[in-house]
Amino acid sequence: MKRNIYLDTIPIDEALDRVRSALDREALVGVESVPVHEAAGRVTSHAVYAELSSPTYHSAAMDGIAVKAEATFGARDDKPLELIQGEGYIPVNTGNPLPAGMDAVIMIENVVPREEGRVSIEAPAFPWQHVRRIGEDIVATELLIPQNHVMSAYDVGALLSAGIWDVDCYERLKLHIIPTGDEVLDFETRPKPEPGQVVESNSQIFMSLAKAWGIDAVRVPPVPDKPEALGAAVQQALESDAHVVVIGAGSSAGAKDYSRATMERFGQVLVHGIKAMPGKPSLLTVANAEYGGKLIVGAPGYPVSAVVCFEELLAPLAAWMTRKFAKRRPKVEAELTRRVPSKLGMEEFLRLSIGKVGGKYVATPLGRGAGMITTLTRAQGMARIPANSEGVEAGQTVEAELLVPGAALDRILVAVGSHDNTLDLLADALMGLDHPIRLASTHVGSMGGLMAVKNGSCHMAGTHLFEPDAEDYNFPFTDRYLPGLDVTLVNLAIRHQGLIVAPGNPKDINSVQALAREDVRFLNRQRGAGTRILLDHHLQQAGIHSADVTGYDKEEFTHMAVAVNVLTGAADCGLGIMAAARALKLDFAPLARERYDLLIPTAFLDDPKVQAVLELIRTAEFKAGIMELGGYETTLTGLVMEPGMGLGV
Amino acid sequence: MKRNIYLDTIPIDEALDRVRSALDREALVGVESVPVHEAAGRVTSHAVYAELSSPTYHSAAMDGIAVKAEATFGARDDKPLELIQGEGYIPVNTGNPLPAGMDAVIMIENVVPREEGRVSIEAPAFPWQHVRRIGEDIVATELLIPQNHVMSAYDVGALLSAGIWDVDCYERLKLHIIPTGDEVLDFETRPKPEPGQVVESNSQIFMSLAKAWGIDAVRVPPVPDKPEALGAAVQQALESDAHVVVIGAGSSAGAKDYSRATMERFGQVLVHGIKAMPGKPSLLTVANAEYGGKLIVGAPGYPVSAVVCFEELLAPLAAWMTRKFAKRRPKVEAELTRRVPSKLGMEEFLRLSIGKVGGKYVATPLGRGAGMITTLTRAQGMARIPANSEGVEAGQTVEAELLVPGAALDRILVAVGSHDNTLDLLADALMGLDHPIRLASTHVGSMGGLMAVKNGSCHMAGTHLFEPDAEDYNFPFTDRYLPGLDVTLVNLAIRHQGLIVAPGNPKDINSVQALAREDVRFLNRQRGAGTRILLDHHLQQAGIHSADVTGYDKEEFTHMAVAVNVLTGAADCGLGIMAAARALKLDFAPLARERYDLLIPTAFLDDPKVQAVLELIRTAEFKAGIMELGGYETTLTGLVMEPGMGLGV
Repeated sequence: MKRNIYLDTIPIDEALDRVRSALDREALVGVESVPVHEAAGRVTSHAVYAELSSPTYHSAAMDGIAVKAEATFGARDDKPLELIQGEGYIPVNTGNPLPAGMDAVIMIENVVPREEGRVSIEAPAFPWQHVRRIGEDIVATELLIPQNHVMSAYDVGALLSAGIWDVDCYERLKLHIIPTGDEVLDFETRPKPEPGQVVESNSQIFMSLAKAWGIDAVRVPPVPDKPEALGAAVQQALESDAHVVVIGAGSSAGAKDYSRATMERFGQVLVHGIKAMPGKPSLLTVANAEYGGKLIVGAPGYPVSAVVCFEELLAPLAAWMTRKFAKRRPKVEAELTRRVPSKLGMEEFLRLSIGKVGGKYVATPLGRGAGMITTLTRAQGMARIPANSEGVEAGQTVEAELLVPGAALDRILVAVGSHDNTLDLLADALMGLDHPIRLASTHVGSMGGLMAVKNGSCHMAGTHLFEPDAEDYNFPFTDRYLPGLDVTLVNLAIRHQGLIVAPGNPKDINSVQALAREDVRFLNRQRGAGTRILLDHHLQQAGIHSADVTGYDKEEFTHMAVAVNVLTGAADCGLGIMAAARALKLDFAPLARERYDLLIPTAFLDDPKVQAVLELIRTAEFKAGIMELGGYETTLTGLVMEPGMGLGV
Repeated sequence: MKRNIYLDTIPIDEALDRVRSALDREALVGVESVPVHEAAGRVTSHAVYAELSSPTYHSAAMDGIAVKAEATFGARDDKPLELIQGEGYIPVNTGNPLPAGMDAVIMIENVVPREEGRVSIEAPAFPWQHVRRIGEDIVATELLIPQNHVMSAYDVGALLSAGIWDVDCYERLKLHIIPTGDEVLDFETRPKPEPGQVVESNSQIFMSLAKAWGIDAVRVPPVPDKPEALGAAVQQALESDAHVVVIGAGSSAGAKDYSRATMERFGQVLVHGIKAMPGKPSLLTVANAEYGGKLIVGAPGYPVSAVVCFEELLAPLAAWMTRKFAKRRPKVEAELTRRVPSKLGMEEFLRLSIGKVGGKYVATPLGRGAGMITTLTRAQGMARIPANSEGVEAGQTVEAELLVPGAALDRILVAVGSHDNTLDLLADALMGLDHPIRLASTHVGSMGGLMAVKNGSCHMAGTHLFEPDAEDYNFPFTDRYLPGLDVTLVNLAIRHQGLIVAPGNPKDINSVQALAREDVRFLNRQRGAGTRILLDHHLQQAGIHSADVTGYDKEEFTHMAVAVNVLTGAADCGLGIMAAARALKLDFAPLARERYDLLIPTAFLDDPKVQAVLELIRTAEFKAGIMELGGYETTLTGLVMEPGMGLGV
């Protein structure tokens, strides 16, 4: 168990500087001739000068007649001037050369046809009117494009117009990606992972990111955690035509992390560890001259760390090598909904769910684990918490870099609160509208939803809070926690909660009494979850103390997560909705029916996105979709709730 | 000469609405299964639910030891707890399944090795510490991606992790581009255009734009202006697998504009003419069902009009057809340097050269002709002047959509003033620096440059204004026109001005006296140009009246434009620099030496971009480059000028 467990972390900028100082980009990235019509997005290695002028001749800019301007000066409204074809005028179409002796064009709309071969005009032409003169656009020999310029579609047009057919460009950058790990399965085999195995996906995130950054990439099948195998794979990569070698995973300093040792065989390790989270165990090496002076990147194994390594290290270096500007994402200022403490000395990349609520952007922090790729797929933005900050308070403004188009941001419906499977149904249906709406839902339990409504940080909150004394749902809680706030409760569904158990119910768990048994391992929901409050109510009614329930202190955040734990045997049972049990083909012992409502600030009922939700959930099609999930009733779906209604109509 | 010369123009939004109402995108754009690892950028046609959880098992999140948390509660700094391998702990590496019975991981850094098979710990572990729990990232059966979602690189990672290998997507949109015109030459033949001919380049602008928008495109060779030929080409396109047919040019209502009539054979013309400049004569048609209900776009022939047709009509419709958000460009607020009148009732797309001068963005309008593709290649931004505006005053702020990365904008050096060929040299050399600088130069003559400096709308101005009484350059003018403004003049070069004449000087033009001859057609420079002031000085000395000079009133804006007119015989001579004559292999009759200086507000000498220019022009390499152009002297190059120096040192 002896290993080098500490990295020598440095700030990202310093890491980039070290590579820029050590890597010879002139030697590494060559120059090639590229046909102009394929050159958009490529970078010129040399200045390009025009071969031809554009136009190459004085050219009629309008359909009409070519004239000698001087000869038209007498023409007036009240004194039209008659011109004779061949002498006074010559008909021209747009693009025709200006006939010799003529120096202006009168557009057809202003020409009055007379007898054959004669026209009259009622206004003079000024010299060079409606004439595109030689070189008006491009003059032969002038500089069209300087060196180190990223060519646009427009440049392609200008180059062809100027008679340029090929242009010297820097090569496109090419990555050679080597996934590693004994535990990873090649996605190309469409594998079924066993415990201890994972589908290798980081290489495909890299392949896709590379494409988006205009970088070519190849990927080899995963290499096992053996120094010889990894060394051979890297050597092969260094001998290929790639400019950059990427080793996926194994970049840290653990027992099976061979990236660093392998790199040391081929070059100089410049960076091992950056002061950033996720992304810390990133490795940067420049290969020795005998290996082409190539860049070798050791990417961390966790997907979000790998993305940070790509976007913050590899991508800017790739841009520098190919003389492009590194992309910058558009930014918005957004108000953070929750306090986020952060480690001093480390820059943190905080993934955020962002939407516009009540005229301002609000940002809800997503999970911070580097292993959760969904914190990126569900994020609309990312904020950097600087190394010198201990965190950001709730209500403070952060600058968020957008991961989605700005236009998408205005189509986000922010829901914070309890989790229910019908929200997936709703999320999909909203994207099917003519003007699609993206549901950004964060699951923090019913009480968390109430607080989000209170703080103005969501458009709606899913809530199913039962108050036994009042025998009513949600209203007793909004009365207590949101006094003075005008809110509306609209039912989404009545749902069945019960004990989710293994198929066939081997431990015969059929009621809340069973949870007190020593052989039953329960799995609870988090504090503030309506389901937990429901459990506590039933425990209390049955006279069971929470201390007597094995696993009462083990929490999950969603029904589905509870169900998955039961499926894999990590727990024997948990309280949850029937839909979750059914989705994983588990058994279900019903315990209660309850009302799952959408809590909406009444002021937001006018919001077109909220209106779209209400219209949608009232459709027969949507209700049928709910019923298909199983364990739901839709008698109240879409109706505005009143205090005291309970489960009745 | 009878033709339908008027279009029925409508606003762009209305044009888009007409197509969206008439075109059946469900029928036109099909669905196909796409391998997930190639799916980034594609749009889902259906919701995607997870097949696997991620992780599929409770997994160690750190290298270290797996323990039962409860059994560690007694461990303290001052009372280490010893654990025995196999009972109290099991070594794990990151990613290993959590051994049965264990529920926490202690990281290796916090484990003290003892004798073989024993370790001690100095702090307790809490349950689930450093454990990635089943479904922490993804829960099997949960919604991963809704319909109509543009997949990101991150989504690719999430999908593979969740055991999804293929995903149903809408087809990529495919354009079929038909260039037209009797006058156009196929660029693929690498042609040498004669007068009346142009190289067809719009199709390649479209091909390149399509690529940037994620649209596939094919292009056929140009079709002549014959209704039968065009009809056959369109029919072939409609029978292909393309979704959209684009007819290049011929979209207006002129004698040889057959696009509309052709479209009417295949479908319903919905739009002929938009209230926009450039771009007015755009045509939009939806083909009849027998032709697949495809979109047929008639693009105008002028390149900037064609670009507007693509970006404002075709691209948003393509986005709508494939369920993507239409791209929006980032915007900046910029101060307009010149008054721009605009036609009421037409939205105008104004191309702008933008840079940051003295802390604010300034925007200099580029040429407004639809035929000038360089107004796009030289632009950093584009402003929309709304249809209900008669224009924008100088000094007013416009919202400019950026055509370049935001990062590029901060690297722009704005030069406004006289034109000189050494500026091309400078522009290229500045892009070769480690931190490249883009020279955005607008040529408005020396006096125009002085005014730009006065108005704070440029970093520097090229100027060569001679004052005969003082026998000095530039200072007499800055004293008069920029009183109170602290400016510095740095010489770029001494240059030779003279009469640019045809090769061999057939008309024997050797002095300014020749300009008074009847057989000599002169071409002048614009008012305010230093070269024109120099001419006037020499005419006056020779006692020649401007009225006696044929062509005195014909103006060009650059030396090169004058030279091109002489080359093509449009004029017999013009006054200009030797470098321009030499670039086009013309003859040159020297008339005067003069000083071409860079006029720089002294406050800007600290600007790193200005400093870079000064450093650069002082290098031997740059001076050698100037000398190679011919007609220059570099004895003063890079030196700060003093009043009264004239051409001396």
